[in-house]
Parts: sequence; C-alpha cells; structure tokens
Amino acid sequence: MRIHVVNPNTTASMTEKIAAAARAAASPGVEILATNPAYGPESIEGYYDEVFSIPGLIEEIRGGAGADAVVIACFDDTGLDAARCATEVPVIGIGEAAFHVASLIAERFSVVTTLARSIAPIEHNLVRYGLASRCARVRACEVSVLALDDPASGARAAIRAEVEAALSDDGAEAIVLGCAGMTDLAASLAQAVGAPVLDGVACAVALAEALARLGLRTSKRTSYAAPLPKRYAGAFARFAPAFSFPRTPPLTSR
Amino acid sequence: MRIHVVNPNTTASMTEKIAAAARAAASPGVEILATNPAYGPESIEGYYDEVFSIPGLIEEIRGGAGADAVVIACFDDTGLDAARCATEVPVIGIGEAAFHVASLIAERFSVVTTLARSIAPIEHNLVRYGLASRCARVRACEVSVLALDDPASGARAAIRAEVEAALSDDGAEAIVLGCAGMTDLAASLAQAVGAPVLDGVACAVALAEALARLGLRTSKRTSYAAPLPKRYAGAFARFAPAFSFPRTPPLTSR
Amino acid sequence: MRIHVVNPNTTASMTEKIAAAARAAASPGVEILATNPAYGPESIEGYYDEVFSIPGLIEEIRGGAGADAVVIACFDDTGLDAARCATEVPVIGIGEAAFHVASLIAERFSVVTTLARSIAPIEHNLVRYGLASRCARVRACEVSVLALDDPASGARAAIRAEVEAALSDDGAEAIVLGCAGMTDLAASLAQAVGAPVLDGVACAVALAEALARLGLRTSKRTSYAAPLPKRYAGAFARFAPAFSFPRTPPLTSR
Amino acid sequence: MRIHVVNPNTTASMTEKIAAAARAAASPGVEILATNPAYGPESIEGYYDEVFSIPGLIEEIRGGAGADAVVIACFDDTGLDAARCATEVPVIGIGEAAFHVASLIAERFSVVTTLARSIAPIEHNLVRYGLASRCARVRACEVSVLALDDPASGARAAIRAEVEAALSDDGAEAIVLGCAGMTDLAASLAQAVGAPVLDGVACAVALAEALARLGLRTSKRTSYAAPLPKRYAGAFARFAPAFSFPRTPPLTSR
Amino acid sequence: MRIHVVNPNTTASMTEKIAAAARAAASPGVEILATNPAYGPESIEGYYDEVFSIPGLIEEIRGGAGADAVVIACFDDTGLDAARCATEVPVIGIGEAAFHVASLIAERFSVVTTLARSIAPIEHNLVRYGLASRCARVRACEVSVLALDDPASGARAAIRAEVEAALSDDGAEAIVLGCAGMTDLAASLAQAVGAPVLDGVACAVALAEALARLGLRTSKRTSYAAPLPKRYAGAFARFAPAFSFPRTPPLTSR
Amino acid sequence: MRIHVVNPNTTASMTEKIAAAARAAASPGVEILATNPAYGPESIEGYYDEVFSIPGLIEEIRGGAGADAVVIACFDDTGLDAARCATEVPVIGIGEAAFHVASLIAERFSVVTTLARSIAPIEHNLVRYGLASRCARVRACEVSVLALDDPASGARAAIRAEVEAALSDDGAEAIVLGCAGMTDLAASLAQAVGAPVLDGVACAVALAEALARLGLRTSKRTSYAAPLPKRYAGAFARFAPAFSFPRTPPLTSR
Repeated sequence: MRIHVVNPNTTASMTEKIAAAARAAASPGVEILATNPAYGPESIEGYYDEVFSIPGLIEEIRGGAGADAVVIACFDDTGLDAARCATEVPVIGIGEAAFHVASLIAERFSVVTTLARSIAPIEHNLVRYGLASRCARVRACEVSVLALDDPASGARAAIRAEVEAALSDDGAEAIVLGCAGMTDLAASLAQAVGAPVLDGVACAVALAEALARLGLRTSKRTSYAAPLPKRYAGAFARFAPAFSFPRTPPLTSR
Repeated sequence: MRIHVVNPNTTASMTEKIAAAARAAASPGVEILATNPAYGPESIEGYYDEVFSIPGLIEEIRGGAGADAVVIACFDDTGLDAARCATEVPVIGIGEAAFHVASLIAERFSVVTTLARSIAPIEHNLVRYGLASRCARVRACEVSVLALDDPASGARAAIRAEVEAALSDDGAEAIVLGCAGMTDLAASLAQAVGAPVLDGVACAVALAEALARLGLRTSKRTSYAAPLPKRYAGAFARFAPAFSFPRTPPLTSR
Repeated sequence: MRIHVVNPNTTASMTEKIAAAARAAASPGVEILATNPAYGPESIEGYYDEVFSIPGLIEEIRGGAGADAVVIACFDDTGLDAARCATEVPVIGIGEAAFHVASLIAERFSVVTTLARSIAPIEHNLVRYGLASRCARVRACEVSVLALDDPASGARAAIRAEVEAALSDDGAEAIVLGCAGMTDLAASLAQAVGAPVLDGVACAVALAEALARLGLRTSKRTSYAAPLPKRYAGAFARFAPAFSFPRTPPLTSR
Repeated sequence: MRIHVVNPNTTASMTEKIAAAARAAASPGVEILATNPAYGPESIEGYYDEVFSIPGLIEEIRGGAGADAVVIACFDDTGLDAARCATEVPVIGIGEAAFHVASLIAERFSVVTTLARSIAPIEHNLVRYGLASRCARVRACEVSVLALDDPASGARAAIRAEVEAALSDDGAEAIVLGCAGMTDLAASLAQAVGAPVLDGVACAVALAEALARLGLRTSKRTSYAAPLPKRYAGAFARFAPAFSFPRTPPLTSR
Repeated sequence: MRIHVVNPNTTASMTEKIAAAARAAASPGVEILATNPAYGPESIEGYYDEVFSIPGLIEEIRGGAGADAVVIACFDDTGLDAARCATEVPVIGIGEAAFHVASLIAERFSVVTTLARSIAPIEHNLVRYGLASRCARVRACEVSVLALDDPASGARAAIRAEVEAALSDDGAEAIVLGCAGMTDLAASLAQAVGAPVLDGVACAVALAEALARLGLRTSKRTSYAAPLPKRYAGAFARFAPAFSFPRTPPLTSR
Repeated sequence: MRIHVVNPNTTASMTEKIAAAARAAASPGVEILATNPAYGPESIEGYYDEVFSIPGLIEEIRGGAGADAVVIACFDDTGLDAARCATEVPVIGIGEAAFHVASLIAERFSVVTTLARSIAPIEHNLVRYGLASRCARVRACEVSVLALDDPASGARAAIRAEVEAALSDDGAEAIVLGCAGMTDLAASLAQAVGAPVLDGVACAVALAEALARLGLRTSKRTSYAAPLPKRYAGAFARFAPAFSFPRTPPLTSR
C-alpha cells in the first residue's frame, strides 16, 4: 500500500518532518510518498495563502499516480473538496482526521493552532464536518508556522500553555494540535499533561490506511464527481478536466 | 494486536457472522476475538432490549483481558459510554465507526436499519456524535434482526429497495447499513447500486486497529474516568468498581 | 391517584429523603410509593453506575402495579427510555422535569450537579430533550452524591457558591439542582439567593400528576412500543418481554 | 387555587368553549376564571392580529387580581413575554404547554393548526422554546379559526386528515392541536387514530396548577423583571409601569 | 425615493437624532420622513414596553402613504412582523439591518446594547434571523435608553468599555451598537478602537434604499400576507384589516 | 462611486450579461467595471473548477485599483474569503447577497441552481453565513452554466418548473436564482409566478453600493487581515503578500 502525503506549502524541511511523522504512524509495509508543490506559499496562514497552495496541491495529487490514498498535510484541510474531485482514491485532511479520531476517545476536545487568523477557518471546517459540538474551543498560541521550528520562538512553551488552559478551562478531555508543523510535539505533550494529544498527520495516515484496506473510495455520485470536461483558459489550460488525469508537465520546473 | 469484538446480544450464530466480517476487515496479523454475553436478549431492537444487554457486554469486556481495542458490534452502540469507563483501551461502536468513515468519503449518507423503533435511537446517536448534519435520513426496512438471515424474509430485497430510495430521494452519496446482522450484504449492494455501502463491523475494526497502532487510549480525565469505588448491592455486587477490574465469575455459567 | 417514585440507586436513606420531597410536592389525596432496587450501585455517578442501576429500576417499575405514573428519581434520567417501553403509564425523569419546568419560568437556567463526570451526561440529555438552548451552563460542585448528607462535606456551601456564580456569571435566571440528593436544599437556597431554585423530584411529581390527571400516556406507536417478544438468555430470562409484564420474583430477596 | 385563563381574542363563544375545556382539565377545587379582552381582533390569524390582541390581554391579566396562575389561550402564545413581565404569578401559553407535555410522552410530535400563515409563527416559537427538534412538522388544515365551529366548514374531517398524514408521513408519535378552538376535538381524535392527541388548553391548565402548587413564580431577575417606571404617552398612559399594577378603568366599557 | 423612518417610542428628541442619522446615511435625493407614534412608551426597554409601542407604530406606517420603504428604528425590531403584514413596501428593522451588514464585513460581531433585560430579546432575534452564529456575544452597558443623551450618565465611556471588551475577549471583528439612541456614537467609536462599529439606523436606511431601488417588496405569499378581513372590537376597531389600509384618524390627537 | 464586478470564470459573453445586470441595478452615477480573469475555467461547476478560478479572480481584484467595492459574480461566492484578505474595500459575493436580501423580504426562500453538484457547496455557504435556517431547499434544474444561454437547452422552462415546485412544495415565500448566468430571468419569472425572484448580481451591486456609501470596509482585525509577508515559490511568486498590492503583470496576456 502506498499513501501519498502532500504538504500543500512549499517548505521542503516541513515536508520532511511530516514525512517522518507519517512513516512513524504507518503500518509496516506501507510506503509513504511525501511531496510538496513546486510553487505557492512557503506556509499557509489564513485564507489568502490557502488559495495559492491548491493548484500546486492538485498537481501533486495528479502526479502521485499509484497511490492508494492521499493525505493533505495542512490543518486547514486546504483544497480537500477539489482534491476529492481530482482523484478516485480516498483523500483525508489532517484536520478532519484529528477531529474524527479525537471524537472516538473523548467527549470533547480543544484545538491549539498557530495564529488567531486560522481560528475561523478551523471553526468553519468543524461546522462543515459536523464536529463543532465536539470541540470545546479553538485556541491560538500566536507562533507562526515557520517559527515552530525555531528554538528561539518559544513555541513549545506557548503551545503547552494553551494545552493546559484547554484542559483546565474548556472542559476539554483531549487536545488536537492544529498545525502539521507541530507533529513532533504530540507525544511529549501528551506525556507532560497526562491527556491524549493528537497529531493530525498520524491520525490521517492511520485513517487513510484504514480506508484503503477496506477498499473504500470517495463517492462519485454528485459533489465529488469527476469535474465536467471544459476549457480552462490560459496558464491553467493543463488543469482542464480530462477523465484520465494524465501527468502533465508542472507549471515550473523543480 | 488483538481486537475484542463483542456482539452484545446472545445469538451465537450472529457472533460468528460478525467474527467473519471482522477477520476479513483486519490487517494480517491482527487477532480477532469475537464473543457474546451468556445472558441477555437474543437480539437488540429498541431501548428495552438495550439495557439488558449491557451488563453482559461489560462482563465480556472485563473478561477480554489483553485486548488492544474493543469493538461493540451492535449498531445502536449499546453500552458504549459505560464500556469506555470500564477499560483503558479504545472502544469503538460499529454505528459511530460507520458514521465517521462515511463522512470521509461522502458529503452525506443515509442509514438503512431494521425496524422503525430503532430510528430514534440511531438519530439520537448521530446528534450526540455531532454527525447528524452528515446523515440525510435514517430508514427502516422493517425486517427484524434475526430474520435477516432467513431467506424467506426477503431481507436483501427490502434493504436494497431502501438503499435505492436513499440514493434517489435523500441526496445520499453513500449508504450505511444499520445493523451488525447486515454485515455480509455490504459488498454486493455496493456493487449493485454503484455507490459506497458501508458495514459498521468492518469500519469499527479498521478504526480500532488505527487507534491501537497510534497508541491512543480513551481519555480518562472526566467523563470516561474509571468508576468511583463504591458498593453495588445484591446480584451486581461483582460489578462494583475496583480499580484492577479482575475477571470475576460470570453471572451464569456458559 | 398513585405515583411510583423509583430511586434507581440502592441507598434506602436517600429513597426516604426523596419520598419526603415527593409527598410534600403532591396534591392532597395523591399517594406516593417510593422504592429502590434491591441490587445495583449505592449511588449513580457517571455512565458506568448508570447501566447497573437500570435492570433493578425496571424490576421496580414492573413491581409497581397500579401506579398511575412513574417518576425516576435520578437526575441523569437513568433508564428513562427503557422504562417508557416497559409500562403504559407516563414515566417522568427528574432531570427532564426540572428542565421543562424551569423553561416555563425563566429564559435561561443553569444546573448545579455533584461531580464533573456527570456534566456530559446531563448535557447530552439537554440536547436530546431539545432544551440545551435554555441551559446556560451545567456546573459541578464536586461533592459526591452520598456526601451530600454528610455535614462535614460542606455540601451546602459548595452548592450555594455554584448557584451564585451561575446567577452572576452565566446569565441564568433560575437554577436547577442536579441531583435527587439535593432535594431538601431547594427552598432555602431560593430564599437565600432571591431566584427560583428547582428540585427535580418536586417538578417530576407535579408533572406526573398533571399527565395522569389529563389521562395522557406514553405514545406506543414506535420508539416506546412494548418490546418485541423474544428470548432473553440466562439470568435475565425473566425480563424477556411478555405483554402483561407480570410481577416476577426479584433477582435477590430484600 | 384560581387560574385565570385569558382568551386573547374577543369572541365570547370561543372563550366559553375554552372555559369548559379548562374546567374539565382542572383538579377538583381549582377555580377557572375565563375572560377575553373587550377590544381587539375577533380571532388571531397571523402576526398582524397578534399585536392588537396584546394590550387587551395585558389589561385582562392586570384585572385578574388574585389569580395564582395565568393561562394565555391562543396557540401562538400571543403576548407571553409581556405578560410574564406584567405579573408575578406564573404565565403559561397553551402552545408551549402542549409542546412541553408532548415531549414527555413522545419522541416526536407534529402540530396541526388552522391556516398556513400561522405555521411560521409556531415554528419560531418552537425554536425559541428549544423544542423544534421534537416537532416533526407544523401542518395547516386551512380552516379559519372562527370556521372551526361551523359544521359546514368540514373542520373535523380536514383536521383528521392532517393528523393521519402526520402519523403516517412525518414519523410523529403524538399530535398537538394548534388552535384553542380545536380544544373539543382532542379526545375523539385520539380515540379515532390511536395515538395521543393533545389540546393546549388542558395541558396549560395542568401545568399552571403544577407551578402554582409548587409555589414557583416567574423569575424576575432580568428578562421578565417588572417594567421600568416611565411615561406612556396618550391613550396608553394607563399602562405605564407602576409597581403595584393597580386595576385601571378599561379602555372601553364592557 | 422616500423612506419612512418610524421611531416606535414617543420621545421626539430621539426621533430627531434618528432622523439626522438617517439623512446622513441616505443617498442624495432620498427623502427621509421620520415620525414617532403619538401614544405609547417614551422608551422601549424589554418585552412589556414593546407591545405598547406597536399599535402606534402600525398607525404611523399606515399614515406614511407614499413611502417606498419603511425603517423601524428600535433595535429590538419591535413590531417588524406585523408591519410587514400592514404594508406592501419593504420594512427593515435597524437590528436586523445591522446584523446583516456586519455579516458582510466581519466573520463575527458583538452587540453592545443598553440594559441586560434587552439581551434575551436581541438574542432571540438573532436566532430567528439565522445570524446567531455570527454574533459572538450580546453585551449590555447598563445605561438606560433615555440616559444615553445625558452627559452625566457616562454613557460613552460605558459603551466604549464594552466595545473594547468585545474586541479583546469575544473574538469579535466588528461591533454593532444595540440601540437607536447610540446612532451618533458609531463613527467616533470606530475611530477610537480601529474596528468597524455599526449603527443600525444607517444600515437600515441603506438597505431600505437598496430594496426600493431593486423594486423588491415583501413576499405576500403566506406569513406576511395582508391580514384577513375581520372585526376588531372596541377601541381597536379602526385597525381592523381593510384591504386599502386608508388613513384613519389617530387614537389621540397630536 | 465605482464597483468592480468580477466574473471569476473566463467566458466573456457571460461577463457582458452580468455587466448589463449590474448596470441596471446600480444607482445613477455608479460606474460598473466588469471583468473576468484571463486564465481559468470557462464555467464553474463544482469544487474542482472553483479552485482554478481564484488566482485569476485575485489578480483581477488587485488590478481593479480605485474600486470602492468588489462584487464576485459567481453564485458559489468563489474565493470570497481570500478576496476579503486581498483588498481593503468591501467584497460581496452574489450568493450571500441574494441570501441576505431574500431574508429581508421573506420568512423562507428556496434556491434554484444549475447542477446537482453545486447543491452541497451552496448549502455549506448557507450554513457558514448563518442563513441555512432561512432556506427551505436548494434545488438544481440540471442545465449546465453555459447551456443557460442556449435556447435549445430548455433552460427557462426547467428553471420555472423548479421555481414553481419550490413555491408549492417547500413553503418558500421567495426564490433565489442560483447562478450568475440566470440574471436575465429574474424579472420575468417573478412576474410569471407572482412571488419575489431574486438575482444575486443585482442584490450584490445594491449591497456593495450600500456598504460603500456607508463608508464601511472589511474588518482587518483577524480573519481578513492582510496576508502576512512571505515567499511564494515559482509561478505564484508575484502573488506573495506585499502590503501595497501593486498591479503586477498578468499571468497571461489578454
């Protein structure tokens, strides 16, 4: 089984960290292919960055022929709907994965994400998925995505403070870390606070494996049906829906 | 890895069918232990039957020492909350499992269950889990649980009729079969109607495996904390909370 | 008119306190029959205790022949659905009773219960009944059920502190006491804080009387229909649905 | 005990029918005072009529000194909020009463009212009270309020047709009749269709009695506090809030 | 184009302030007719005052022949439904106007109103309109309506304190001022806090203009259909629905 | 005043039709600038097309310097959130505009859109905006976007059939046409069916004018704050957030 994990931003070091987390979560024998687009934002913080990461994300998915499932490794589940239209194999966002898994081990969870500007997008996703009633609160630690790896940012302390506030003030019984860049912190935080702390990358890989093993695929009846054939003008012509979705040359060389 | 699948009713032939479905869904190397209580209702149809299946269910779980995860194989997710208090390993109900998995491959699903009296309990679960907005409708085919295996009952035709109505009238993009006893019908129905048809047993085994592999356990912070030590009077004295939950002799011999 | 008040736990002194509250609330000429099961938990604190109190509760209801209505005197409304299936007369839980009555005299109420582990079950009931939007918050005073009667527990002061916080911080306009064991505190707390403080036992007796006088009975159309006849294996065989629900010898002698 | 039942429209024959239903529902020894305003609409059908019935309704309530509780006998619960501000005794609307009582004997009910223009106001009340999730559907039989008593209107047949449709199509397990003018039909319809059919007048009298006997009164903390003293200009000067709410001469003599 | 702005209370100085705000918001060439009833409460604070302002409000609307749209200048949107039945031109409440406009420029807003007793009515409106999910919190500054113009009341400071609390504590991204009497404060508060602060009067005038220019009128299909012809008894006889709604002599001379 | 109307697909004839509708709706003296991207899908039907229309949409908005407000003329409100981050002037989607305006003239509306695959995206928007409770149903006429202008497609008849079904079956009191390509049909359909039929383009232009005249701008506090400065790799480098958002050369020449 092969799972294609796409980090929709263009920061290769982050893709590597995600790949390590994905491999740690996968069953023996499951191959993890981790890639990121060649063009688009270096990190995704808010609505604007999101939309410029999606064409590259779709291009990666189309290029990942042979995968049994796809994971989108951005906590906003950037481009998830379009991705489900673009491929027949299951596509899992790390945000939804963490929400669903947390709902199986706790009555209520809180999310700790990076910046306040990501709170509303995450809350909208929770409503959309149906799981808003399971989430006590979405909190921001106000450390930017790329600063998570900078020891000088105080990221771990800031995140831990929010985790502890969630447990004591929100009535949360589990914590979801709200950024792919926090994937390496889950285990030690869980240890430190004595409650489940979930990383979306691990959750998504496990769910992707589960779906692939069960032979389940995205329903193509209506909302996620293959896009209708039509002309795409200009630079995006090569994304024009064609049923076989052949690999086309990328927008920029890498 | 060992997964304990408990069928909360006392019909051994149904337990066997469930065991077969669980084994088919499990990864290589995962052991499935399938049991049912020695006392309680032969099938669970509505609120009354439910409550008499739970003590036996808890007894089975307590007896299943060594399991890495527990699956409750009744679509009402009978006794799920109590079971989560009674063990430290993850516990997954087949109803919730199917709802969560369906939400990952379709915008909206419908449920086809046995009798109309089970519609309200299932709807309450959907609200409780948060996933009611993902469910277009819960339908009943009006075939009783134990009649599902009787060829004379016309069960398959009745279920298929509801499945097709759900796809054409409800806007459902996937179907969830709402009874453990329908587990053997999912694949052929999916084939017949050209849309995903989900069996909760398979979904629950896959999710149980996923949680166990991720090392996740039920949060014990509040709602699912171990029951407080106290006296249980009379025949239930042996269920009185004791922290180690040792195996006690069953209520009736088997 | 006779109202059967069942305390689903096995602590006789608590049953007596409940009986006194029920008699104080009943109209002249209404007979209160107050009983508790002979087996099961001495107090109900959380999901695990709940399930072991229900068989005994059902047995009490079946034994209470001649009652015009039944009240379940546990604030979690333990076993309410099953009880409605098991008898034709109206069944009222003290939790739901208090929520409905509070909704008639206040825009919004808060609940003050015993332990934090009971918050989620109460919140789920509020959602289920439809009245979650009327409840500002469910608070716990962290005094256990059986400690409520222990003067050394500081129960009254702890409860009063939560009541006052609910009035000042939650925007609550009335308070619901969230445990049958608090029944004797309602009047003095209402006096002390100058706002309605409701006791579920009194509310349930009043509603049970109202329904019985109106000649209303639980609808038997679908969800609360009599359980279908079937075999119950082992020790629970005597609970197997039989339409007349005759009094059977109890599981343990008293 | 004295219960003041106010029919907010000015049709005395309807007031008499309501009084008879109220007396039939009341306990022995409970006095029913049934009145209607001297001015305002002869029937209440939609938003416009409602607002012109409320000043007269308030005048009746202020004139009903000595009542232990007030019932507003219009299914729209016309003026309920203002009435709660205008008196210290409990005030119950027949719409809310029927919704609450139906919720105690059925998972889900449907409402059968008069005209389609009343559907939205009733639906808004259901949302406001929290009980919308308990109501399967609000149906209109398209017979006007005053035609209900005209044998030539075919009212009973039209209502029965909607009741039966609600039971077969909506999944309703009980029916609420959505107009005070239908109060005399509940018993025979219940008999005819074999399911609970509730009349709001009876439900409201029973709840009013219950609240009065429990000594409960409307919370005066915030929303229903006595109106602040201030000048009312012109013809409404005599309604200007004065804490004692003395009986003032009515707007028109009767 | 002519817009009729009705202040439903009887305080002429407040009507003048509202008129000034309306004129400032209107396009060149749009005539603002600002009136208030001759009878009823001098200010509207809570449910009781509301109902006595509505007959006069309807009378003003019926007297405002030739208007292309009507604005109801009370933040509770007093009498909005009845007004929509009473005229064919669009009717906009200043509360709903502010909520809709705020939803177009911010994810989430908070409301700052006068007294706590107005919080529940505003919250009910938000639910009714559908926009409750867009409102973070309704706050009261505890300054009465008529004190807003009294420099000694400290109104501006009290309001600003709540505005700042809303921005820092509620996650609000815009503020709605919850009283027509605050109309003159919006611009300076917006300047002071660096976030949008909306005045309902301006929003409603702009929306009324928009609807009138688009030629849109209230749907008369069902809920807002012209009231059915019928007798109104006593002093309200002249409000009895008559299809042409001719100008009748007012209840009191002005 | 200048309003920039962006049709996010690349079909110039559709842009012209939209421009005509926008000009008809605008006040005298309001300039309408109507453009479409030079690259991307020729029509937007479902999630996949959406994401490839947004970069071009953002480019158009950045190129429309001097506009006082922006209208996004796709009923899915494609790219609305990102657009609000990309400019300081108000941005209105034609879907949200129609929903808000319909809510001001009707209790409940239905939407008639093109293809079934657009139902879910529209429903998600309704939930997100808060107005789902105001929408009775989203219907599809199964005519594709570009076929709307083909007389042979039977588009008008198909749309009218759905409009009539919505009025008779859904309880809708107004209709919203769910595609920018239907803008020319609203007036004649309203005439034909005798109920308000709303076109989002007209509604959005009117709301954009209203916001601009009131001097309101998108809140920049959190969710819609200017994107953080960062590197965008490859072909999208020129979209990298820069505070002044200078006009950059387009991706393809036109």
